[in-house]
Amino acid sequence: MSVASATATSPGAVAVVGAGVIGRSWIRVFTRAGFPTRVYDPDAEQLGRAVAWAGASAREDVHLGLCSYSEARAAEGRITSCTTLEEALDGVDYVQESGPEAVATKQSIYRELDAAAAPGVVLGSSTSANDMTVIAQGLAGAARCIVAHPVNPPHVIPLVEVLAGAETSPGVTASTLRLLRRAGMAPVLLDRFAPGFVLNRLQAALLREAISLVGTGVASPQVVDVVMREGLGLRWALVGPFGTGHVNADGGVGSYFRMYGDAYRSVWKDLDSAPNFGEDVIDAIARGMTATYGEDAVTDLSAWRDRMVRRIMQLKVEDPPPGAD
Amino acid sequence: MSVASATATSPGAVAVVGAGVIGRSWIRVFTRAGFPTRVYDPDAEQLGRAVAWAGASAREDVHLGLCSYSEARAAEGRITSCTTLEEALDGVDYVQESGPEAVATKQSIYRELDAAAAPGVVLGSSTSANDMTVIAQGLAGAARCIVAHPVNPPHVIPLVEVLAGAETSPGVTASTLRLLRRAGMAPVLLDRFAPGFVLNRLQAALLREAISLVGTGVASPQVVDVVMREGLGLRWALVGPFGTGHVNADGGVGSYFRMYGDAYRSVWKDLDSAPNFGEDVIDAIARGMTATYGEDAVTDLSAWRDRMVRRIMQLKVEDPPPGAD
Repeated sequence: MSVASATATSPGAVAVVGAGVIGRSWIRVFTRAGFPTRVYDPDAEQLGRAVAWAGASAREDVHLGLCSYSEARAAEGRITSCTTLEEALDGVDYVQESGPEAVATKQSIYRELDAAAAPGVVLGSSTSANDMTVIAQGLAGAARCIVAHPVNPPHVIPLVEVLAGAETSPGVTASTLRLLRRAGMAPVLLDRFAPGFVLNRLQAALLREAISLVGTGVASPQVVDVVMREGLGLRWALVGPFGTGHVNADGGVGSYFRMYGDAYRSVWKDLDSAPNFGEDVIDAIARGMTATYGEDAVTDLSAWRDRMVRRIMQLKVEDPPPGAD
Repeated sequence: MSVASATATSPGAVAVVGAGVIGRSWIRVFTRAGFPTRVYDPDAEQLGRAVAWAGASAREDVHLGLCSYSEARAAEGRITSCTTLEEALDGVDYVQESGPEAVATKQSIYRELDAAAAPGVVLGSSTSANDMTVIAQGLAGAARCIVAHPVNPPHVIPLVEVLAGAETSPGVTASTLRLLRRAGMAPVLLDRFAPGFVLNRLQAALLREAISLVGTGVASPQVVDVVMREGLGLRWALVGPFGTGHVNADGGVGSYFRMYGDAYRSVWKDLDSAPNFGEDVIDAIARGMTATYGEDAVTDLSAWRDRMVRRIMQLKVEDPPPGAD
């Protein structure tokens, strides 16, 4: 992926508020796409680490051939560390909030943001769990508040789930989608709130069955992962679950579901809704991962995953699916 | 992927019995890996089409740069069309059965196979639904009968779910795994039968939630697919569902599940176990796929998916994950 795309007009400034693992990754997202990025975290040490990480991530992208040295330097140059929230919000069009997940904390952060941000500044939240209707309840600026939930880590995985609250204005939704696209992300608009949104509900549904298969002795954790890696996941990474059905029947997904609907219904009846998820099963899964990847492999595995995701995305850019606009 | 790998000794012959969509793909799997392949289908027209397809598939691989012209010709030269089952079984070490899925049909095919095959010939079945304990019940050669369930299409997707029946001998299981690896596949051994095995249970669990999200108005079918394609699927195609947790916490998947276990349990309670899967939802999903990929795009989309899967697999060969043997 060419991470920095030059555009005719420079994008306006954004603020990244909260500079943990998700916030720091957003710094890289915005700066590589040309956005002047003002960063604030109440923890000055965390702020310093995040800014340093964003610089290191830019240099790593040079190493991976994802951008040039001068692009990496330019991206680093777009970061402004701020010591107060007010300073971070100065002159920005958009805020990406990535603070702690507890709803009371989110409400408190949003009260501060809404009080401090100039009118018209959009307040996007990285929340993975909360409904913007609840976070922004009672705020004067509820219309400019919106969920923009990324996948960890956003500088690698492009998807963002965008979800309006009850009071969010349609214009804010449209401008958030536009800004995220300009930042190189793949935002999707959800139509209503459900706990876990779409991504974590799909993940939870699959993990529940995966955990059950291990706990009931059908297969080892390693085998479950290989079934995904060398089987299902290869299809889903390209065409998604419905697209997989679409490809697997001559008449498309409608024919597919009419053909296999009863088979699915029959398996659904057999799925476990409350699997054993105790320490014994968790330990078995952890041992399986250590057996596959070795001890202390998380950092190396994470780096491998990140560079491979980028290569897969590059393949899709070079050879897009039929019908893609 | 280099589809033809020269080995010191040539592999023994195999039989492909049943030459529909799955069987024809197995012809390509075995012939490109150097196995003399004897093909039989009671429907002579279907047999002819399958052999022609396998030749076309080999030539397509030349076009895609996956093998040389001479390799493709050599692969085609390894196919023997047979007019009787007995002829197909002559001199083979292994049978890959890909007949109709109804259990009574499978039992009848296995009675014929067991009666006709020389002692020691392994009888593998592509069944996606049946337990070998049931298929092979009462057969003199039940010890040589085993499930080897591929993913559609096996010449593109390497995973094979291998599952012994109650009477399958450990030696047969070991030799089946060995043969499938030699054929370039990624076989995994399941520990016991469950309806849908591992792959289709995981697929069913996820599809149930995906269908529910569409039916309850949380998101469009297109959005559900994009969440997978540009989000979850990118992780799962590389590290699987447990590996994803392993990468997402510094202490690995054990820490991940201890941190997020309650969040998952809470989403599990909210998942729909019997979603609306009527014609209205199926039609909405079908319309969503047409909107994404255009009318009549199944053939093009399928070809795109196939070549992209192979490129992703090639990426994994060139840069394997840490700890991979």
